[in-house]
Amino acid sequence: MVTVCVHVSLKPSLLDSAGRTVAQSLQKLEFGEVEEARIGKTVTLKLQEYDEARVKAMCDKLLANPVIEDYRIEVAE
Amino acid sequence: MVTVCVHVSLKPSLLDSAGRTVAQSLQKLEFGEVEEARIGKTVTLKLQEYDEARVKAMCDKLLANPVIEDYRIEVAE
Repeated sequence: MVTVCVHVSLKPSLLDSAGRTVAQSLQKLEFGEVEEARIGKTVTLKLQEYDEARVKAMCDKLLANPVIEDYRIEVAE
Repeated sequence: MVTVCVHVSLKPSLLDSAGRTVAQSLQKLEFGEVEEARIGKTVTLKLQEYDEARVKAMCDKLLANPVIEDYRIEVAE
């Protein structure tokens, strides 16, 4: 069994309104050192066998929206 | 400026219904090797200065729900 983490994040050029709200909330709490926050998601998959091309296909078909999101695949030991 | 990634995930003992839906969808597509999927979120913070205790406080106060979620702090270079 192989564990694979897929990190999906909004492309850097796009405004992350949820992230901006988080940054503003942290600043209002007491955390003035926060300059920026961006929010992404992580999908942790348990696979019977790992094939990078197939995991990329999963990302392109379901896990990420390639128009607005980037993804990064990380194989855990 | 320091970049810090906070990885927030549902505690392993809790049912991740969104993750289960993703796993079932992947299996229906053509990816039969998927055994399980769990979904978490990643908050990437840009901080003027890094203080681990303060980032933990951000997690406990806003970024994670300690009742149902675990978090892991990763300092990027």
